[in-house]
Amino acid sequence: MEKLTIVKIGGKVIDDEASLDQFLTDFASLAGPKILVHGGGKIASDIGQKLGIEPVYLEGRRITDQTTLDLVTMVYGGLVNKKMVAKLQSINQNALGLTGADGNVLLAKKRPVKEIDFGFAGDVNRDSVNIVALMKLLEAEFIPVLCALTHDGQGNILNTNADTIASILAAGLSKPFEAVELVYCFEQPGVLSDFVAKTVIPHINQEKYTELKNSGIINEGMIPKMENAFGALEAGVDAVKIGHFSDIATLASGTAIGTKITWK
Amino acid sequence: MEKLTIVKIGGKVIDDEASLDQFLTDFASLAGPKILVHGGGKIASDIGQKLGIEPVYLEGRRITDQTTLDLVTMVYGGLVNKKMVAKLQSINQNALGLTGADGNVLLAKKRPVKEIDFGFAGDVNRDSVNIVALMKLLEAEFIPVLCALTHDGQGNILNTNADTIASILAAGLSKPFEAVELVYCFEQPGVLSDFVAKTVIPHINQEKYTELKNSGIINEGMIPKMENAFGALEAGVDAVKIGHFSDIATLASGTAIGTKITWK
Repeated sequence: MEKLTIVKIGGKVIDDEASLDQFLTDFASLAGPKILVHGGGKIASDIGQKLGIEPVYLEGRRITDQTTLDLVTMVYGGLVNKKMVAKLQSINQNALGLTGADGNVLLAKKRPVKEIDFGFAGDVNRDSVNIVALMKLLEAEFIPVLCALTHDGQGNILNTNADTIASILAAGLSKPFEAVELVYCFEQPGVLSDFVAKTVIPHINQEKYTELKNSGIINEGMIPKMENAFGALEAGVDAVKIGHFSDIATLASGTAIGTKITWK
Repeated sequence: MEKLTIVKIGGKVIDDEASLDQFLTDFASLAGPKILVHGGGKIASDIGQKLGIEPVYLEGRRITDQTTLDLVTMVYGGLVNKKMVAKLQSINQNALGLTGADGNVLLAKKRPVKEIDFGFAGDVNRDSVNIVALMKLLEAEFIPVLCALTHDGQGNILNTNADTIASILAAGLSKPFEAVELVYCFEQPGVLSDFVAKTVIPHINQEKYTELKNSGIINEGMIPKMENAFGALEAGVDAVKIGHFSDIATLASGTAIGTKITWK
């Protein structure tokens, strides 16, 4: 099959209706088969607070206990996902909202308890992707809209990082597709070498990444995203792009400011 | 295509994990293509109360304002739907959760404002059913699990009665399928002639229905369900059955206690 575009969107844009609408309109302009993966935004914390659900941290890491799981299942799988799907449908995009449980598209492993019990957190890898199910949906010309939820196959929904989901989807689907492009959208115009001047690093390969990490230019927050990018490239994904959510159309076509990540 | 079974489940069973698990296990035993339609249960009111969302009534009718819509989108489309899907997947049922917006399977009309503005309430009829999209999902051997939400095609999710959704799905899908059976499951063993003794009326046709309505034996709560049943039959659905949620397997096969509704 032709080229598949996988777009991950997260952060503040999820909570701002006007920005989200504009983003979805831009997403609609992307040609060919595509998948949207989204995070939850601040709204989950806001609703959690109203419900009296306090975030639980153990050694600085967020724990998904049963109440938190119910919260994210409602907010990510219900409120955020369905609003996006309804909006996309209104602009003739045949969106179909999914968690990993729907059609068993993403089967995760509950994170094993070692020093910390992360609760209902699901780890995924390339083998988690149900290529057959996703291809059926894509061939039927649906546009899968995935939220950051997977399942364990034993009746439990699991909380899974949306960046990771986008990466392993791209990795898994690089088999049936001739080309797969993965685009990470967030609040910055790309991977930055200077946060104040917002200087974008236009191209990063493995070698450059090691340099940037060693010099501390790429640090904490960006490291998991970069690891996800290189994980996808290692599995055969053609290109990974990182940029601002308002640049999605030009990022995908390769004309916008943003960071392009390649293996070599 | 062969016979399609559409099951509607609602009421207390949604909130009781053990009963719901048993119901889903029984649902799994039904052969052939099938669709599950579910209501929201008491949990939406419970969560609404915690969030300080007060139900709004106008002339005794519940109004779906924006906060109520967000609440039901979270609870029906997220929490309840995804828990059912994950449970069904754990027993090898390839469930795929949907609102009417997903794949544009059910396009409703926002209820027109006359004496009362019902807010985000969606009315559906036979033409609301996207037969092509649902057939693609059924042919791909997914089991659609629909919650009581539709959309207006203009970006809004709408609140729609689950009994009505089940009825119009059955009506719409009676075209491509050789036979369609609609099963309404609730807390009673069928349509009752005596609430204390729980005497089930085994068979009701149009004529009998008029009698039972005139004599007041079928009254308020049951009338919309009966109208939905006859609406489906009028459109060509082969049989409608009403019975207890614990009898789903035998209700479908026709051996259980319950009420069978036919046109003549």
